[in-house]
Amino acid sequence: MQIIGEKINGTRKRVAQAIADRDADFIKNLAAKQAEAGSTWLDVNAGTHPDREPDDLIWLIETIQPVVDIPLCLDSANPKALQIAIKAVEKTPMINSISGEPDRLENVLPLVAEHNCQVIALAMDDKKIPETGEQRIEIVRKVLAETRAAGVPDARVYCDPLAMTIATNPNSAVVAFQTMQAIKQEFPEVHLTVGLSNISFGLPARKYVNRTFLALAMQAGLDSAILDPLDRDMRAAILTAELVLGRDDYCLNFVRAARAGAFDEKV
Amino acid sequence: MQIIGEKINGTRKRVAQAIADRDADFIKNLAAKQAEAGSTWLDVNAGTHPDREPDDLIWLIETIQPVVDIPLCLDSANPKALQIAIKAVEKTPMINSISGEPDRLENVLPLVAEHNCQVIALAMDDKKIPETGEQRIEIVRKVLAETRAAGVPDARVYCDPLAMTIATNPNSAVVAFQTMQAIKQEFPEVHLTVGLSNISFGLPARKYVNRTFLALAMQAGLDSAILDPLDRDMRAAILTAELVLGRDDYCLNFVRAARAGAFDEKV
Repeated sequence: MQIIGEKINGTRKRVAQAIADRDADFIKNLAAKQAEAGSTWLDVNAGTHPDREPDDLIWLIETIQPVVDIPLCLDSANPKALQIAIKAVEKTPMINSISGEPDRLENVLPLVAEHNCQVIALAMDDKKIPETGEQRIEIVRKVLAETRAAGVPDARVYCDPLAMTIATNPNSAVVAFQTMQAIKQEFPEVHLTVGLSNISFGLPARKYVNRTFLALAMQAGLDSAILDPLDRDMRAAILTAELVLGRDDYCLNFVRAARAGAFDEKV
Repeated sequence: MQIIGEKINGTRKRVAQAIADRDADFIKNLAAKQAEAGSTWLDVNAGTHPDREPDDLIWLIETIQPVVDIPLCLDSANPKALQIAIKAVEKTPMINSISGEPDRLENVLPLVAEHNCQVIALAMDDKKIPETGEQRIEIVRKVLAETRAAGVPDARVYCDPLAMTIATNPNSAVVAFQTMQAIKQEFPEVHLTVGLSNISFGLPARKYVNRTFLALAMQAGLDSAILDPLDRDMRAAILTAELVLGRDDYCLNFVRAARAGAFDEKV
């Protein structure tokens, strides 16, 4: 399971503050902790302020890179910010994200292709988020046609089937699972990723919903997720799901984590 | 999700003691609590003492019936004990269990047919427990041919694909899931059930393994399980899996359980 650490995100209040204050220690600490906790990439989102975003993004990248060995995942809806930021990164980054939206395909995809990036591809376009798995697959097909045409191998594409909250649509997790299975069947090289935070929006006991959704999504083929790697429950859920799904040889990771206290009752 | 409450089992030390002492209060309490916690059936196992089993089973049945409204699941490997016990039950019981073993098919199946019982059918025969899903399906096919020939409708058969511990075979949960999916595909009317206790045998943090296995098995089609209905973690896992799998209309059960404290941190 590949983890995209989600915590350095300028839409979160505390991080926005740290960016505004140029509080490098806060950001470095958040980066180092997420890397230690096993992240494969660190998502870096400078917030949505159009004039400040490129500068903020560069500052974040230059602050984070000296303290971690893992690559970044540049998270922006702004092709210009990405274009500038990509020059500041040392390791080939992941790009978050493209979708069926023509603007993203036209302006972000060439960057992905040119710099050999991995890229998150959302199963949505410029209309509303499709309700059915079949409609989402349709969009994924279009996006994959474009990534292939741009020379990006399927194995560098991380499809996000979109997990909307169960609170307003009881089938939204099921639709996400069906979309994942259909993508895996049609595009076996493509990776599957998902942003977890929406699935339980508006519900009580959210961590129960999130960890169960994650385990079931792993059974449906999920091999990556955008989440908080410092969340103890989430790490326990991933370790356990990998064990139960036969992906933990000799139960080594699970038993080692148990010895280190990963499953102990909270004190 | 239909629950077969597992606690009244004479192979457990405390229950064996209560049976030996004819401690009716202890048994009544165990029965009432499991029924309150939402069991569909109560498993009743009098232990494995051949001379005492029929008497003990009758005593258990007569002790339990006055305090619960739900049917029993008569759990015995001894056809004679079942034959005697079935006369003492008021509501049509489930029988635990038949399998591909000729002795069980010959001696237990006629009872199931005669009394219109539900029956648990294990995916094993008199040889060792088969390692692969394909071998287990082979046995299920033979058993279903027999139950059909005896006039037992598929909808009264609860197939147990067998969950062996992951500690000695990392694929054992995966094999169980594959077996479940194959059974559902070939025999859509058949129910799926499973004894949960073995899956995590020999591992640390067993409750994590058990609840994750249960959620993933529900995704694979499990609609019943033999478990401890008083186990708070297990109930939370079932409620959450039903929510995520789109089987909880308007999130009603989940939200109601959350309000009643089902997901609160332990105090």
